[in-house]
Amino acid sequence: MYSTIKRFLIGKPLKSKELGEQKITKTKALALLSSDALSSVAYGTEQILIVLAAVSAAALWYSLPIAVGVLILLTALILSYRQIIFSYPHGGGAYVVSRENLGVNPGLLAGGSLLVDYILTVAVSVSAGTDAITSALPSLHPYHLLIAVVLVLLIMILNLRGLTESASILAYPVYLFVAALLILIAVGGYKLLTGQIEPAEHAAIGTPVAGLSLFLLLKAFSSGCSALTGVEAISNAIPAFRDPAPRNAANTLVMMGILLAVLFSGITWLAFGYGIMPKGEETVVSQIASETFGRSFLYFFIQGTTSMILVLAANTGFSAFPQLAFNLARDKYMPRMFTVRGDRLGYSNGIIFLGFASILLILLFNGQTEHLIPLYAVGVFIPFTLSQTGMCLKWIRQKPAGWVWKMMINAIGTLISAAVLLILFITKFPLVWPILVFMPIVIWVFYAVKKHYNAVGEQLRMTGKPLEPIEGNIVIVPVAGVTSVVEKSIQYAKTLSDQVIAVHVSFDKEEEKKIEKKWEELNNGVRLVTLYSSYRSLIYPLEKFLETVEAKAATYNYSVMVLVPQFIPKKSWHNILHNQSAFLLRLRLLWKKDIVVATLPYHFKK
Amino acid sequence: MYSTIKRFLIGKPLKSKELGEQKITKTKALALLSSDALSSVAYGTEQILIVLAAVSAAALWYSLPIAVGVLILLTALILSYRQIIFSYPHGGGAYVVSRENLGVNPGLLAGGSLLVDYILTVAVSVSAGTDAITSALPSLHPYHLLIAVVLVLLIMILNLRGLTESASILAYPVYLFVAALLILIAVGGYKLLTGQIEPAEHAAIGTPVAGLSLFLLLKAFSSGCSALTGVEAISNAIPAFRDPAPRNAANTLVMMGILLAVLFSGITWLAFGYGIMPKGEETVVSQIASETFGRSFLYFFIQGTTSMILVLAANTGFSAFPQLAFNLARDKYMPRMFTVRGDRLGYSNGIIFLGFASILLILLFNGQTEHLIPLYAVGVFIPFTLSQTGMCLKWIRQKPAGWVWKMMINAIGTLISAAVLLILFITKFPLVWPILVFMPIVIWVFYAVKKHYNAVGEQLRMTGKPLEPIEGNIVIVPVAGVTSVVEKSIQYAKTLSDQVIAVHVSFDKEEEKKIEKKWEELNNGVRLVTLYSSYRSLIYPLEKFLETVEAKAATYNYSVMVLVPQFIPKKSWHNILHNQSAFLLRLRLLWKKDIVVATLPYHFKK
Repeated sequence: MYSTIKRFLIGKPLKSKELGEQKITKTKALALLSSDALSSVAYGTEQILIVLAAVSAAALWYSLPIAVGVLILLTALILSYRQIIFSYPHGGGAYVVSRENLGVNPGLLAGGSLLVDYILTVAVSVSAGTDAITSALPSLHPYHLLIAVVLVLLIMILNLRGLTESASILAYPVYLFVAALLILIAVGGYKLLTGQIEPAEHAAIGTPVAGLSLFLLLKAFSSGCSALTGVEAISNAIPAFRDPAPRNAANTLVMMGILLAVLFSGITWLAFGYGIMPKGEETVVSQIASETFGRSFLYFFIQGTTSMILVLAANTGFSAFPQLAFNLARDKYMPRMFTVRGDRLGYSNGIIFLGFASILLILLFNGQTEHLIPLYAVGVFIPFTLSQTGMCLKWIRQKPAGWVWKMMINAIGTLISAAVLLILFITKFPLVWPILVFMPIVIWVFYAVKKHYNAVGEQLRMTGKPLEPIEGNIVIVPVAGVTSVVEKSIQYAKTLSDQVIAVHVSFDKEEEKKIEKKWEELNNGVRLVTLYSSYRSLIYPLEKFLETVEAKAATYNYSVMVLVPQFIPKKSWHNILHNQSAFLLRLRLLWKKDIVVATLPYHFKK
Repeated sequence: MYSTIKRFLIGKPLKSKELGEQKITKTKALALLSSDALSSVAYGTEQILIVLAAVSAAALWYSLPIAVGVLILLTALILSYRQIIFSYPHGGGAYVVSRENLGVNPGLLAGGSLLVDYILTVAVSVSAGTDAITSALPSLHPYHLLIAVVLVLLIMILNLRGLTESASILAYPVYLFVAALLILIAVGGYKLLTGQIEPAEHAAIGTPVAGLSLFLLLKAFSSGCSALTGVEAISNAIPAFRDPAPRNAANTLVMMGILLAVLFSGITWLAFGYGIMPKGEETVVSQIASETFGRSFLYFFIQGTTSMILVLAANTGFSAFPQLAFNLARDKYMPRMFTVRGDRLGYSNGIIFLGFASILLILLFNGQTEHLIPLYAVGVFIPFTLSQTGMCLKWIRQKPAGWVWKMMINAIGTLISAAVLLILFITKFPLVWPILVFMPIVIWVFYAVKKHYNAVGEQLRMTGKPLEPIEGNIVIVPVAGVTSVVEKSIQYAKTLSDQVIAVHVSFDKEEEKKIEKKWEELNNGVRLVTLYSSYRSLIYPLEKFLETVEAKAATYNYSVMVLVPQFIPKKSWHNILHNQSAFLLRLRLLWKKDIVVATLPYHFKK
């Protein structure tokens, strides 16, 4: 039943050696890894305009220089990450780069913020995509949480099926979105330049605006930087590329950067040209599209692909999170389960963990995640800054040919990222402070996990010292009554040892006498010990008894085993019809005592 | 940790022999078992008025003859149940009475509808009580689901603490409610008779009303019968009374009947006298109280005790459901766990099941349970009818002194209950049809459970035939690597048998060779079998291997045991850091194969 459903959803298992075949081409990778970055266009410009419009309409022209600033930052980041890709062809996430060049703590800080960030990516993107859908079809609004959860589950299942297959499905919406926005920018720009749409009456560019402080400008700039989230995804996922992986990854990165730059500047320019003010109930992109095409097919095409790419942006998280979790788990900072490949060779546990964590976030925030966006940006710029810093140190230490030039590029990247981070903390502290609480906890967990694994390794190492001798076994068989199961258990116990004791816990003195009498009639040579339990507990008197037996056994170097008969019903729902004492007993004895527990299955035939 | 919390919430465990001390006095029983019946006054009159007011204000005088009809029905039920109490002093629930006199199927039908009904009691009463609270304090409205759930949990915990203690806490609100309504009726009646409140201008009693069909009158009557839900609770709970239990129970029942009659007729009379029309936003009782006292202390006192008794009505379900579930479980129609007494001697599993089932209902219906009330009434009148019919047959069969008179009383009870049931089905079919789907399912489950227990009993019976001989054991030890745990496990396995085989499942050919080499160096005389798994599954290759071993062992009458080393970390959260292969392996082997699985705990020291 379970396995049939699993097979249907996930597909048939793949052999380990089929791994190579799951690698992806550049075109697919562009779609798969850049939807997060490209989808930011859907809200990047808007975030800038919201801050400026709060001052006055005259301040809107500042969106142009701010956009230029964002583009410069984008260029610096793309160039920096290009260098990282070539230096770390096996996956140069911020975690690896920071750890290698800056040390363990910066590495964990970078890794931890990225992990948290990927969860935010999924939650924010899916919620925003759902909002786009429900804005278009308001009748679906009451179900927005359900829609968001179903979307996350859908993306999760696609990822569990494996990279290539999901890429094939997910690639089209990304291309369609790019096509749709390019058409919008081309047609809109043409109409604007030819005067078919009258340019808005603006304060001339450069007009000074009262009340616009440096603080607000920086706030607008840092808001615009939310358009850059997702840029790092490609450098984390190099091993998923076809050979030569680093070159393919680097080219994909540059391609993505160009697309992002074109779309972002196009939308910002049109928004300024049309004189668009941000509205609560309609997105900036929707306003531009509506003014350009009216509520025609093309308008709905743009809105549709926008909502789709927002949902797919979540997929970036699903590509990157499991890989990063694998890296951290391999270094023993996260549970070992994140290193296990599933039936379809993806890191299933990472995929599933990310899916449920983001669903939890969506439900906790009721799908209204606008307050999470700044947090999300901080989570991105921490690893940006750390990995660029690490690259600078790397160049300085290794001094390869042309290292000064390379270092300059990364140094510029570092400075700009650090500046954005600082600006985010200064201008949006009320929204981003939780990261200061979360990150120390995450890093503490990393260390606790590592400590445990180290301790385990130490305890598992063979010392070469001789083990304490075991002279023999005492086998204890708990019996509930005199039945055929007990008969079988006692027979089996006798094959293991000649020291077998049966124990019965009674809640009722009369019942006790009856069982003692029946036992005598059995005459199987095994002693029955009866224990009266005045509190109706099965386990407590047994434990007391076992303590006595253990103490005695220890003096003779004997080992104690409890043989528990367990009913196995034919149908699994029948389990609730039995009291599961065997299960509870086993759990308790294994955990609290140092006793070997053997379970003798008794399969019911009907 | 778990046990500390449990001790705090539930109290210290009681010894089995302390059971007698938990019995309750009449005064406490009246409060404990009649809150359901008495609380119906809060909505009984209103239900009648809603149907009549839908025709016209002139139809309201019909509420008086309808109320008389309800009172006659109440009298018949009280007299009938009085006879049941004396005939079944060990608890004469509809289940027991119907099963003994009418046969198994009617008994199960009665028992099943009552079980479902008690869940509805809790859900409906708590939701209605919550509504009363949030009506008084509208600022709490957004949290109504949370309030309802917390209330159910609270009542559940009180019941887990044991009957007497909960009675002490729960008795006062019931008395206060009765006192509050008696004051209201006295003062309101006085003011009405002395003309301080002017009697409403009515159509004279007896005025024919256009458009009032027999159908509507019957519908109004059947709605009024919702005031009678809960009458049967006392007859189910006789064993909880102090000796002489039947006499005490019967007297309590009569007392409750009188109180119910006085309150119900008083409220109906005042409602008619004041000329009150039912309103969506204010209950009838609230309107009467408001007109009598204004919004003074007494008004809030009445509203407060009303909401409290509605919440406490849920407690009737918590007294009756576990006892009924115990009866059904004792007859093997429900899982055995419902017969187990908990720490405080209540049937904990029944209490917990009822609590969570009703919380589920509350959440499913979003706390708006007005549509559940007719279903609830049907669920009550099915067992009413069945048990009265059963009593009639009993008198006819046994013919004790005065049996004709006794039979007459129960026959009248039968006829009236059956008539109400018929009227409910005719006038409210769209709301009550689910019972026709549910009941067959419930009865099917009863039979399935019974069938399983019978089959188990048969299989556990000793046949006297000699068992197949066991000549010896083969012990298989799965090993993940060459560690100190493996060393210990092999040593232990050797004490059980001289046929020990170690098995290693590898995902990687190189790893495999390393382990084989290390094993040779160990030189412990045990053979290591390595299995290569191309699908990264640990369990599947092991299963295949075990099949081979089993087949071979069977030919020599050997038994196969798998000895699984299990890490037991010092802190329980550390468990997520291990892959739990031992746990999965054990589950799988026990369920799918007939193999004894022994678990050797390895407690980490840090």
